[in-house]
Amino acid sequence: MFTEKLAKEKVLRDPIHNFIHVQDHIILDLINTTEFQRLRRVQQLGITGAVFHGAEHSRFGHSVGAYEIARRITEYFEQYYRSKSPNDGLWQPEERLLTLVAALLHDIGHGAFSHTFEHLFGTDHEAITREIIVGDTEINQVLSQVSLDFPNKVASVIAKTYENPQVVQLISSQLDVDRMDYLLRDAYFTGTKYGEFDIDRILRTMRPTANGIAFDIGGMHAVEDYVVSRYQMYLQVYFHPVSRGMEVLLEHLLHRAHELFTASDTHEKDFVGPLLTPLFNDQPLTVHDYLQIDDHVFMTYISMWRSHPDPILSDLSRRFLDRWPLKSIVINDETAPLLEDLEQLVDIAGYNPKYYTARNDAFDLPYDDYKPNVAKPRTQIDFVLGDGTHRELSELSPLVAAIKGQVSFDNRFYFPKEMLNIEPDELFADTFKTFRSYIHNNALTTPNPES
Amino acid sequence: MFTEKLAKEKVLRDPIHNFIHVQDHIILDLINTTEFQRLRRVQQLGITGAVFHGAEHSRFGHSVGAYEIARRITEYFEQYYRSKSPNDGLWQPEERLLTLVAALLHDIGHGAFSHTFEHLFGTDHEAITREIIVGDTEINQVLSQVSLDFPNKVASVIAKTYENPQVVQLISSQLDVDRMDYLLRDAYFTGTKYGEFDIDRILRTMRPTANGIAFDIGGMHAVEDYVVSRYQMYLQVYFHPVSRGMEVLLEHLLHRAHELFTASDTHEKDFVGPLLTPLFNDQPLTVHDYLQIDDHVFMTYISMWRSHPDPILSDLSRRFLDRWPLKSIVINDETAPLLEDLEQLVDIAGYNPKYYTARNDAFDLPYDDYKPNVAKPRTQIDFVLGDGTHRELSELSPLVAAIKGQVSFDNRFYFPKEMLNIEPDELFADTFKTFRSYIHNNALTTPNPES
Amino acid sequence: MFTEKLAKEKVLRDPIHNFIHVQDHIILDLINTTEFQRLRRVQQLGITGAVFHGAEHSRFGHSVGAYEIARRITEYFEQYYRSKSPNDGLWQPEERLLTLVAALLHDIGHGAFSHTFEHLFGTDHEAITREIIVGDTEINQVLSQVSLDFPNKVASVIAKTYENPQVVQLISSQLDVDRMDYLLRDAYFTGTKYGEFDIDRILRTMRPTANGIAFDIGGMHAVEDYVVSRYQMYLQVYFHPVSRGMEVLLEHLLHRAHELFTASDTHEKDFVGPLLTPLFNDQPLTVHDYLQIDDHVFMTYISMWRSHPDPILSDLSRRFLDRWPLKSIVINDETAPLLEDLEQLVDIAGYNPKYYTARNDAFDLPYDDYKPNVAKPRTQIDFVLGDGTHRELSELSPLVAAIKGQVSFDNRFYFPKEMLNIEPDELFADTFKTFRSYIHNNALTTPNPES
Amino acid sequence: MFTEKLAKEKVLRDPIHNFIHVQDHIILDLINTTEFQRLRRVQQLGITGAVFHGAEHSRFGHSVGAYEIARRITEYFEQYYRSKSPNDGLWQPEERLLTLVAALLHDIGHGAFSHTFEHLFGTDHEAITREIIVGDTEINQVLSQVSLDFPNKVASVIAKTYENPQVVQLISSQLDVDRMDYLLRDAYFTGTKYGEFDIDRILRTMRPTANGIAFDIGGMHAVEDYVVSRYQMYLQVYFHPVSRGMEVLLEHLLHRAHELFTASDTHEKDFVGPLLTPLFNDQPLTVHDYLQIDDHVFMTYISMWRSHPDPILSDLSRRFLDRWPLKSIVINDETAPLLEDLEQLVDIAGYNPKYYTARNDAFDLPYDDYKPNVAKPRTQIDFVLGDGTHRELSELSPLVAAIKGQVSFDNRFYFPKEMLNIEPDELFADTFKTFRSYIHNNALTTPNPES
Repeated sequence: MFTEKLAKEKVLRDPIHNFIHVQDHIILDLINTTEFQRLRRVQQLGITGAVFHGAEHSRFGHSVGAYEIARRITEYFEQYYRSKSPNDGLWQPEERLLTLVAALLHDIGHGAFSHTFEHLFGTDHEAITREIIVGDTEINQVLSQVSLDFPNKVASVIAKTYENPQVVQLISSQLDVDRMDYLLRDAYFTGTKYGEFDIDRILRTMRPTANGIAFDIGGMHAVEDYVVSRYQMYLQVYFHPVSRGMEVLLEHLLHRAHELFTASDTHEKDFVGPLLTPLFNDQPLTVHDYLQIDDHVFMTYISMWRSHPDPILSDLSRRFLDRWPLKSIVINDETAPLLEDLEQLVDIAGYNPKYYTARNDAFDLPYDDYKPNVAKPRTQIDFVLGDGTHRELSELSPLVAAIKGQVSFDNRFYFPKEMLNIEPDELFADTFKTFRSYIHNNALTTPNPES
Repeated sequence: MFTEKLAKEKVLRDPIHNFIHVQDHIILDLINTTEFQRLRRVQQLGITGAVFHGAEHSRFGHSVGAYEIARRITEYFEQYYRSKSPNDGLWQPEERLLTLVAALLHDIGHGAFSHTFEHLFGTDHEAITREIIVGDTEINQVLSQVSLDFPNKVASVIAKTYENPQVVQLISSQLDVDRMDYLLRDAYFTGTKYGEFDIDRILRTMRPTANGIAFDIGGMHAVEDYVVSRYQMYLQVYFHPVSRGMEVLLEHLLHRAHELFTASDTHEKDFVGPLLTPLFNDQPLTVHDYLQIDDHVFMTYISMWRSHPDPILSDLSRRFLDRWPLKSIVINDETAPLLEDLEQLVDIAGYNPKYYTARNDAFDLPYDDYKPNVAKPRTQIDFVLGDGTHRELSELSPLVAAIKGQVSFDNRFYFPKEMLNIEPDELFADTFKTFRSYIHNNALTTPNPES
Repeated sequence: MFTEKLAKEKVLRDPIHNFIHVQDHIILDLINTTEFQRLRRVQQLGITGAVFHGAEHSRFGHSVGAYEIARRITEYFEQYYRSKSPNDGLWQPEERLLTLVAALLHDIGHGAFSHTFEHLFGTDHEAITREIIVGDTEINQVLSQVSLDFPNKVASVIAKTYENPQVVQLISSQLDVDRMDYLLRDAYFTGTKYGEFDIDRILRTMRPTANGIAFDIGGMHAVEDYVVSRYQMYLQVYFHPVSRGMEVLLEHLLHRAHELFTASDTHEKDFVGPLLTPLFNDQPLTVHDYLQIDDHVFMTYISMWRSHPDPILSDLSRRFLDRWPLKSIVINDETAPLLEDLEQLVDIAGYNPKYYTARNDAFDLPYDDYKPNVAKPRTQIDFVLGDGTHRELSELSPLVAAIKGQVSFDNRFYFPKEMLNIEPDELFADTFKTFRSYIHNNALTTPNPES
Repeated sequence: MFTEKLAKEKVLRDPIHNFIHVQDHIILDLINTTEFQRLRRVQQLGITGAVFHGAEHSRFGHSVGAYEIARRITEYFEQYYRSKSPNDGLWQPEERLLTLVAALLHDIGHGAFSHTFEHLFGTDHEAITREIIVGDTEINQVLSQVSLDFPNKVASVIAKTYENPQVVQLISSQLDVDRMDYLLRDAYFTGTKYGEFDIDRILRTMRPTANGIAFDIGGMHAVEDYVVSRYQMYLQVYFHPVSRGMEVLLEHLLHRAHELFTASDTHEKDFVGPLLTPLFNDQPLTVHDYLQIDDHVFMTYISMWRSHPDPILSDLSRRFLDRWPLKSIVINDETAPLLEDLEQLVDIAGYNPKYYTARNDAFDLPYDDYKPNVAKPRTQIDFVLGDGTHRELSELSPLVAAIKGQVSFDNRFYFPKEMLNIEPDELFADTFKTFRSYIHNNALTTPNPES
């Protein structure tokens, strides 16, 4: 049968887990598909590398890393929590391969800078993930060899509709294989230490329950440390104001290119090239077209656009490639009233505010307990006590209680750095003076201004 | 002059800081004194090694490590914050040697298991530290070569009475060279990761102010991470219930030996040996006597006491050496009312409760802001903003706010493990049943039950 | 003056050195040039990432890393080996900035896959490096602000013609800032440990001499370990047979594209796109054209070529992107006589041997002593003894003596993996059987077949 | 049965292996014996901590670490190399427990500073190991519960007489669980990097054969790196001249104490105390007496001897405790002829050469192939090729060939440091001048003079 194990496991050398252990034919075949190999050409952290220069790693390493964590968990569950009868709430070994595959493929639909262009171009990486798994792809061919309904099962796990909550929560919950791998990996490649936590201990205290996944009480502090690490990585790395200043540039330049494309005659449209055209012409993207678009394509055309006749597109492209991010100031009660005047000031200085300013908000929920009445209730992190009762994480940890449900939040106004050197017109002199004094002070909420 | 630097620095290889850089004659000479070399014979974490077997490191490494951090800070201050006029709140380079020496010697008065025997035998390690520095010692001879009042200055820094708050706070505050070194060092040797933090970044954001030491706002998250790490080390390592079960044994056996010594005729007193006798005979200890007592002496006599005719002393000694810690249960509203009955039960089972049970409370203040009205107000951790104003740490960090002023707290009742296997008399059967059900559940507050 | 230091240093977070310390205006300005930022778009190890998936780091990080090592060395030299009189063989502080700049820019002329295409397209990265430094570039503008002859001085250091051998050897010798950084960095990103060595100790034993750079005898074992580490990285990582199987594909597909381009009419030439055209049309490349070509451009056009009408170009492009490397066998006395027959066999199987087979030899000199009569004599690694005499490394280390002058060597024949599954014609059956038995055995010289 | 596994494994936190996994009742019970707990009181590296202050770890951690490596190997063997028929040369799962126990207990007979006192007092740690395993001990009681002949089997594995060479070689060969653990552990605690190697890869390429243990050819470079690491640790750490200067002091002071004891009347013999007396009175030591002697006992009596009336014993004791090692010079063709005169000079200066000088030779064989004609032939390290043939390590590795059979060697003459400051009598002036010039130069062979 196709689901057989390899005679001897193969390994990939990995800086985070040391070795990725590939033990199944199907896993090896999935890694060798064209769709999976494409993940080598999509960076994990997009433009964060502009701030933390070590962070140039791709989604390929993260995907095999998430798989490796899933492999360790299922091995452990099989040894200690193997189901003996249906509905005993323990681990059913036949879920192993499905879990591993879902972990490996959870990011398969991600494209280059996908967070940036999804709302610009109306794509939906979740729909694409599903199509890659169930559509006409090499991935689907491999999966179908397991069984005809296997691709749909894999897709349902990733879509969180699969019936076994243990499998779903291992792939996607507040403490899942995805988050565990990317925290460790991003910490390693950025060279920061904030994302590190004791994964070995967490994995040892994980256990299947009737409702999904819980943790032995003995792992409480390791889990607490994980939540705190995640919170710190958000503040220090993922929300870094300078990265966001680069992201704003990227968004504006793609938007400008899209406008120019739309307004152009057919024969002038070829500045976006054949690979990007399907994205720009506002038709639904096919999976095939989507898969052609990787970091390299974007970067190549942005390179070309540096000499595009449109001064805004060429200027933004140059700023992006030469790492000349927009500068920012925190929007708060004191700065908010100034922003309209400032936009006008930017305009007068010769920068179209539509392309040279932005309001950018960073938010995330580091942890929340289960809230039955919200749209998408989160599965909370639960601990099992000696007597079998459960306790939710934030009841046990004052640290987690302090950040529970908190939407971390850093709203900023972006503008060209050149504004700091101009001598403003008398009319705006006061506004500008106040503004500059805030810039002076904005280190207050800049998490890591040095990098 | 004696305060000259070495022609070329010498280094000690250190697992935490890689190299300890010794650049001054006086530092080298202090390290070579008999009093400083004694620190090799006093373990940093006492009996914690019984739980985390890697934690067998001595106070010697910690002392040179704290010195090394002080050396880096003063070098940095000299480069970027050198005082140009009196009272400008900047760093006065002539404080360098004093700071380095105080860092090196801050633990010089610590003896073996000093926390355990201080209240048993009425010694005071702070008084002894002072005597080692100002009394008739090799340390004092070296220090006196700098200047006649130098020993007193060093002692005043350690006693926190020195006039320059910058020097005092570097040696002793909520974020000082002592705490920074021991967190990193204890994390390394125990093999846990909880104590790690970004010391390089913290040192880069430290700065002298008119009132002592503050931090650039850019270092906020690194400092927050340090406070959280410290909190986690307390819960996970320093307050480990099993270590405390060993500490209770040690305390009881020393207490028993002291009682036997006091009750003995002169010719029977020699079971404590010549080195411990000054400690046991309730006379004030001289510095010379104190310095003779190290881990080895205690351990050797406890070894001998295994065959002492007193059954309690010999039994406790054996339990201590063979790592047979007392077992514990958390004292809370439900267990507290049972304890008296339990002590009686322990007694009936043949274990004198005075030596075989204990109530042991662990507490510490992970961080607090300045409270003017308390006995010993703590120097709070302050950040300097871009405009020069200051903000206190817990105002900026919700994580620190959550644990600020909190006295971490884990009150436990200790008893012989054998109690779990006895078949209790009818009279106490109910108490015992309740008791056992709590033991079953006590993982709830056992931070790290595996180790 | 332009050579002033920054009021306060800036830092970049780096996973290898923790922080890169930028202390000079000119260094900051050089990093911010368009030519230097381009290094972010050129991977350090080219297609090695296809074997070690963590190795996706760019030349940007390596360049600032080499700079950081140079910065540490010059700081150390200034403190301990500052020249007091001309020609005393010690360190002249005025060489500091030149050294730092040369370290930062030593790789500025490298292009994407430059080793692969240099001999295909006749480019010369050393000439380009020079042009970037002395030609019409942002880099040149920054350098010229130091002094009119500064660009030429920088270029001469990189070309090894600068008069001060200390500066030249720090940048380029058998133990220079380039090699030290890349060994540590490549070890980190691949996740192998073979490249690690004790850089802190090596830097502490480095010293200027009248003839260049030497080492204190106390550093002998650390230097020995570095040479052995380098040797092991060559065998384990840089010469990995699978990487070379990818490199052969790349070379063949570029060669095929070049042939097609040359044979095409003008209107059919645009399949290589505007950025690559200057490379393909056999005209001398301008610096401006060269700098437009980065990894992204190559990868984007290779992506497009997957659907090129030429079956060889499209097939090779697909194999390259989907990581389907050519397979290999060691060429030795037993296999060499078979190769011609095998090429014929490959041909019969439908693969043009010109594009589907290759003989690829890997060689390098891990260390050699000074050989006066060879074309490019290497500067040997010398140690200074207590009495001031010198000894060469391989005289002191039996390990280094064992690999001295040895050109590590792994000559391989590459062919399509599909050949392993064919059923050969009777005519070649014997050859093929012998051949397969060697493949079976070729693990003998495959350094790291797992990855 | 007693050989059952635990319901759930227990773990010990370990800095090297992260967790030590205890899965069998018998292993847990062995760790809890009084004889095994004693290993906490015997330092792994004896007086090496005087040079590398981090190296204060005990044999306890090393013993559980060697066990953990054995556990991983047997688990791997069971999965991939399980024997299917007798004499198929594969792994017999019933050898698992024996292997684990032998790994855990391989050092059980080691005493404090045992290498130093074995030849002084005529003890034999191998005989003692055997007695602890087969004699009247807690260890023996635990082992006997497995089966009556189990203790003898364990002893035979450690004595290398057990019939299955696979088990013997895992415990004791040129690449065994003992050496693998101590290299990694000593590297970690000293803070040097020379001892690190890629254990994960070595374990993955290990395999049972008919003659013992071999390695897949794919692991060749990892094994080569291990041998080189071991060689470097010998030169850099284990043979450090300063440690040996401390060891000489220890040996001389114990020798002096022994002489005084022998020459004393009964009532004056008690200066060695009850625990050391059995060692000093030249009677055969019982196991019980032997087990009472740990580091603490030696250190405590050396502390007391600082005030012993014999000036030599008290002086040597002080030097030892205050870390005042003898100084040394390499013995070579130039220095050897001077030594007799120098001893006389030392004598004249007031130091009895018998106690204040020594000739100390350090030697070890980093690796050797099998030599049938020597007394104790070593089991060579063999690799298995694709076709099943074997190749010996030094045939494949030029690095190993370079140090094969080489008895590393560093013969030194030790003398009091004070000799460097004396003004010698005219008679010896020339000798002394020559001598001092060699000392000046002796860094040549001092591996790591800084530490």
